[in-house]
Amino acid sequence: MTSPARRGRPRSEDAGARILGAARGLLTERGYDRFAIDEVAARAGVAKTTLYRRWPTKDHLLVALVARVQDEVDVADTGDIRHDLTVYLSAVAAGLERMRRVGRDGAPEAGRSAGVVAELVAAAARHPDVGEAVRALFARRNALPLRLLERARARGALDRAVSPGVLFDQLAGALYYRLLITGAPIGAGYVEGLVGQVLAGAAPAPRLERT
Amino acid sequence: MTSPARRGRPRSEDAGARILGAARGLLTERGYDRFAIDEVAARAGVAKTTLYRRWPTKDHLLVALVARVQDEVDVADTGDIRHDLTVYLSAVAAGLERMRRVGRDGAPEAGRSAGVVAELVAAAARHPDVGEAVRALFARRNALPLRLLERARARGALDRAVSPGVLFDQLAGALYYRLLITGAPIGAGYVEGLVGQVLAGAAPAPRLERT
Repeated sequence: MTSPARRGRPRSEDAGARILGAARGLLTERGYDRFAIDEVAARAGVAKTTLYRRWPTKDHLLVALVARVQDEVDVADTGDIRHDLTVYLSAVAAGLERMRRVGRDGAPEAGRSAGVVAELVAAAARHPDVGEAVRALFARRNALPLRLLERARARGALDRAVSPGVLFDQLAGALYYRLLITGAPIGAGYVEGLVGQVLAGAAPAPRLERT
Repeated sequence: MTSPARRGRPRSEDAGARILGAARGLLTERGYDRFAIDEVAARAGVAKTTLYRRWPTKDHLLVALVARVQDEVDVADTGDIRHDLTVYLSAVAAGLERMRRVGRDGAPEAGRSAGVVAELVAAAARHPDVGEAVRALFARRNALPLRLLERARARGALDRAVSPGVLFDQLAGALYYRLLITGAPIGAGYVEGLVGQVLAGAAPAPRLERT
């Protein structure tokens, strides 16, 4: 009640930003296992109750953090679908590769483990409310690349028979499959090859009119 | 030392089959959380040490169980790649849908959660030895559909520029992405549409020779 008023920005947004900043730092240092919500509150300089009211578990906080990180990736529409998808998916893949290594620097298995993404997937499966939050996060976020694909189809850059939703599953799915299941790398070369193959397959059918 | 010899089949294989049978039943009834390795040993009628010697944690046992379930799915090569892939991936998707519901019958969220698959993904990320076992499992198993795709390409049913490995990531990846990330259904209609779209995109390029 006696804390000084900060003019110019709302208090709750300020606390939220500080909490997410502290959470990001702590997660990067410690990894999922040793990421404790009380320590996040202490680092952010907010009361634990403030944090718990907004994010009741560390998994809820993690979902908010992933949303923040995802929102840092631009989805630009330059009119060149191959270029735009490659840029977008390369940024997604680089983010996933970083999450693989979170809290595991130097561990020999760091490059093969799905790390914090796998923990989020498991938390989503265990707790219906976390699951709902994760699905809402991806629905909101995936709407952006989906619109890229829809616009490309509308201007004739993709075959009209192609389903943008299924096409996006093929692209994002391949990255997450490698991250979570096979442990294969998802570097820039892989992303370029994937986008090239998927778009070559979705190219408009050539008109085979007889001359 | 005094147990009666069973003639005709090796003891260890027999115990292994009984353990996996008991594990499957218990997992289906209880789900991952309440799946305890000691209870599996009791149901299978084997000493705990027998079980632990072979599978030191419940996650190792789970990997062996998934291998057994995967091996029940045939990978046939009839020469019709679209048919063969649809049959194979439909069986994979049906198995994943069943794993979604394991131990959660009647729970309203059962259809959206990734259930035991998500737990396996998290265990693989946490424990390097489980991760190694999961990756070896999928490498061994995925070699079969990969050979289907390679043979289809060799006989000209797929474009020569297509990478079978990337194509398989697009297919399997889409299923696991929906299971683990977006929670979208992966029923027969989805699998057919996916295979159709991926193979249409991988069809050999028409020869556009001028007449």
